[in-house]
Amino acid sequence: MNQPAHTDGAVPALLERGRALAAPALREAVGRLAPPMNTVAAYHFGWIDADGRPAASDSGKAIRPALALLSAEAAGAAPETGVPGAVAVELVHNFSLLHDDLMDGDEQRRHRDTVWKVHGPAQAILVGDALFALANEVILAPGTADAARAARRLAAASRRLVDGQAQDIAFEHREHVTVAECLEMEGNKTGALLACAASIGAILGGADDALAESLELYGQHLGLAFQAVDDLLGIWGDPRSTGKRTWSDLRQRKKSLPVVAAQAARGPAAERLTALLTADAKKTQEEFDDFDEAEFATRAALIEEAGGRVWTEGEARRQYDAAVAALHRVDVPGPVRDRLTALADFVVVRQK
Amino acid sequence: MNQPAHTDGAVPALLERGRALAAPALREAVGRLAPPMNTVAAYHFGWIDADGRPAASDSGKAIRPALALLSAEAAGAAPETGVPGAVAVELVHNFSLLHDDLMDGDEQRRHRDTVWKVHGPAQAILVGDALFALANEVILAPGTADAARAARRLAAASRRLVDGQAQDIAFEHREHVTVAECLEMEGNKTGALLACAASIGAILGGADDALAESLELYGQHLGLAFQAVDDLLGIWGDPRSTGKRTWSDLRQRKKSLPVVAAQAARGPAAERLTALLTADAKKTQEEFDDFDEAEFATRAALIEEAGGRVWTEGEARRQYDAAVAALHRVDVPGPVRDRLTALADFVVVRQK
Repeated sequence: MNQPAHTDGAVPALLERGRALAAPALREAVGRLAPPMNTVAAYHFGWIDADGRPAASDSGKAIRPALALLSAEAAGAAPETGVPGAVAVELVHNFSLLHDDLMDGDEQRRHRDTVWKVHGPAQAILVGDALFALANEVILAPGTADAARAARRLAAASRRLVDGQAQDIAFEHREHVTVAECLEMEGNKTGALLACAASIGAILGGADDALAESLELYGQHLGLAFQAVDDLLGIWGDPRSTGKRTWSDLRQRKKSLPVVAAQAARGPAAERLTALLTADAKKTQEEFDDFDEAEFATRAALIEEAGGRVWTEGEARRQYDAAVAALHRVDVPGPVRDRLTALADFVVVRQK
Repeated sequence: MNQPAHTDGAVPALLERGRALAAPALREAVGRLAPPMNTVAAYHFGWIDADGRPAASDSGKAIRPALALLSAEAAGAAPETGVPGAVAVELVHNFSLLHDDLMDGDEQRRHRDTVWKVHGPAQAILVGDALFALANEVILAPGTADAARAARRLAAASRRLVDGQAQDIAFEHREHVTVAECLEMEGNKTGALLACAASIGAILGGADDALAESLELYGQHLGLAFQAVDDLLGIWGDPRSTGKRTWSDLRQRKKSLPVVAAQAARGPAAERLTALLTADAKKTQEEFDDFDEAEFATRAALIEEAGGRVWTEGEARRQYDAAVAALHRVDVPGPVRDRLTALADFVVVRQK
């Protein structure tokens, strides 16, 4: 898919606006944490380096805050109305990153050592918990009925997020996972919070249920498109741009979409892949860590040969189409719909 | 202090009522979690054993649910009005137990292996996160303005809970902690959630701010009394009733109240204690784990000799008195005040 013309320049500006409007409230919230959690959180967000010196690191694309502000505009409210939602969703997202990196043993994120690696597992757990608690405080702070509605959706999305991570980990130890199970897991792990980001601003802006639900549907499909692309990057991504190791997801035995789609296919490549993965599942982590690059390259080639790569690319496009279609079911101001569409384009065409 | 006559029989019935009224909603909420988290949570709550067989284990005293129901009655509402608060607070409490046991390396709780020991660290993190998310769903579920008020207080209490755990861990690595710092930590770690439990039912029952705040104050002091007793048990408690090892808090180098009060005293015992603890702080965990019983017995004797034990016993009584005094600042039905007082008696006179 080529990047449509109407996204030129628009998306970086939207992301920058989201970051800029959310940053003061985010920093204020994090500053409330008891030491040393405030410092550890500041490191996680890339505001300081491991030695505590001010830094201006890449703190992520900040798609969620951008979505929350556009969401407020979709309901005819000012983008600022979405700020508590933007901050709360960003806090929940980062809570999950802190805990997931620890559980997955990921040592690098955004080209920097992860929190558990620098500050130890206890700080990764504590600061994650603290960000989650802060998220609930931030979203409820306005004290309005709309804030309470937003908080209910955030709580439900947060639980689905944890469910998704639990499913993801459980799947690593299973020999076989269906495509439907993988999509359900990814819908929980990635779709739920993007759906929340895409609707929370509108809810804070007083949107009715029909608008909120259409925006949620857009976000849910956007999340699945995002995750399909992420799954492609997790196997074939360039370490220089992903900040992760080569074959990252294969090293963790993740049952991501390309893997389960390849296994669901018929033919010799799928059978050879399944035979290898079945044997892999019985290995200890130590045995598995001893694999050389060629072993992963073989698995990646079989996934591609069985059609897992092409299927996942198609799935990203199907989910993108469903996301955009959801925006046309309800009355959203034209320019806002264009920007939400541009954001979806950006998510699906990120460098593979 | 002797147990006052009016608590005879009343407290066990209050605790049992709390458990019985909260149990169906608690089990329903936990049942919503994605496998295997539902099973892991059921193990944590003592509903099943490590092999998945139904069990009727000691699932804790359930002081918080009992408080939440009494709290509803304090506002003139039916005890059932407090149920979402009772369940939410119990979920937050158990979220913190799951994470704290992992961070502290505690292998036993309520005479059973802890979740991280049986199901691994990832499940302890995930199920803790899931219970915290569920708590927010449960408290917001009624969808009323009072539920939103209750949710705000729960969010603030949850964050203080995490702050307290962070302070507790940070103190383990410090040579010196003041009594004021220790009381602040314990107010966060234990006081905040008991304050929330003691007021959340009243808030759900439509209490005004004055009543809610007096009940919070009662709960805050009750929490500090509870923690003072817990700190005594953490050093001098009988392993057969605490379910922990001898000198449990000393083994973890906890700067609990008896320790910091002893260090704050003057005289040779305080000085010898401080010299020992300063040397201890520099030891690796492995060197420390090699200590024999006599080493801990020496430290416990010095704490007692310096007056740390007597001071902490007095502090439990002072906090108890302040808790009861808070109940007399506002208009609470007489029988409810008696029951809240009985519960405070129970907390302070538990077996030392």
